[in-house]
Amino acid sequence: MSLYEVSVPTFKRTLTSLAAILKKAEAHAEANNIDPAVLVEARLYPDMFPLKRQIQIASDTAKRGSAQLAGVEAPVYEDNEETFDALQERIAKTIAFLDSLDRQAFEGAESRTIELPLPNGSLKLDGTSFLMGFALANFSFHVVTAYDILRHNGVPLGKMDYLGAP
Amino acid sequence: MSLYEVSVPTFKRTLTSLAAILKKAEAHAEANNIDPAVLVEARLYPDMFPLKRQIQIASDTAKRGSAQLAGVEAPVYEDNEETFDALQERIAKTIAFLDSLDRQAFEGAESRTIELPLPNGSLKLDGTSFLMGFALANFSFHVVTAYDILRHNGVPLGKMDYLGAP
Repeated sequence: MSLYEVSVPTFKRTLTSLAAILKKAEAHAEANNIDPAVLVEARLYPDMFPLKRQIQIASDTAKRGSAQLAGVEAPVYEDNEETFDALQERIAKTIAFLDSLDRQAFEGAESRTIELPLPNGSLKLDGTSFLMGFALANFSFHVVTAYDILRHNGVPLGKMDYLGAP
Repeated sequence: MSLYEVSVPTFKRTLTSLAAILKKAEAHAEANNIDPAVLVEARLYPDMFPLKRQIQIASDTAKRGSAQLAGVEAPVYEDNEETFDALQERIAKTIAFLDSLDRQAFEGAESRTIELPLPNGSLKLDGTSFLMGFALANFSFHVVTAYDILRHNGVPLGKMDYLGAP
């Protein structure tokens, strides 16, 4: 498997599932007379990030992780999404960026050194360790937590909404 | 990257993080006079699986997913874990099974046909689609949900507990 194959299609498939999950959440709010902002701001614990931030970080992890493997700059987004529509737009532009990446640019990324900034320094990883040990794990952490926040708030979701079509 | 490299070390690293997360949960219960069974049975919504079941399924996904790629039979466990100790044992024996797999057996798994049972039939996938679109996604879904259940119940955890060392 190439690093492209393990990263970009995985990010895209899961972001597409996330967009569909948010559609269900929005429809659930509308059907039950719930202010959509309540779900956008929902969190599982007072010092955990709310839904909107989970989605912003999932977007960041997908675009930055792929960009670092491809050796290009990732776009910077403002993190100002406050509505379901804005979150959908964020996901759509993340997918559009992933689509813009050249599969060839990922060749040799296995052995490319990728620097991961840490609070007190930085970590240097090869492309494989970066993708498997950090980028994909970090990405799914935020997408699953977004799912769990909505599920905890009564949105009718099931695991297939997350997994999508393999 | 080989399918071995993308699957077994990823499952092992995350299961090791999960074991450490459960240790913290157990210590938190003890320090705060919480019956550990309350955490073992905790869930995010009445019709969601409790913590113990999330861990059983994470274990199943890791052992079955790897076994299917290697073309061997996975051990069957009884799903009777009711305590932190029993859950730790479940994780340890899952890791021991992963360690027993022969890296060579994964060669050619990219194009091996893997059958995924579904409620109304089955889905035939090649090894790459099975691993990236199903096994890894399903595995992280249950591990992150276990984390979220504990975080929601006040166990002092942070993302690095999940990510571990890349």
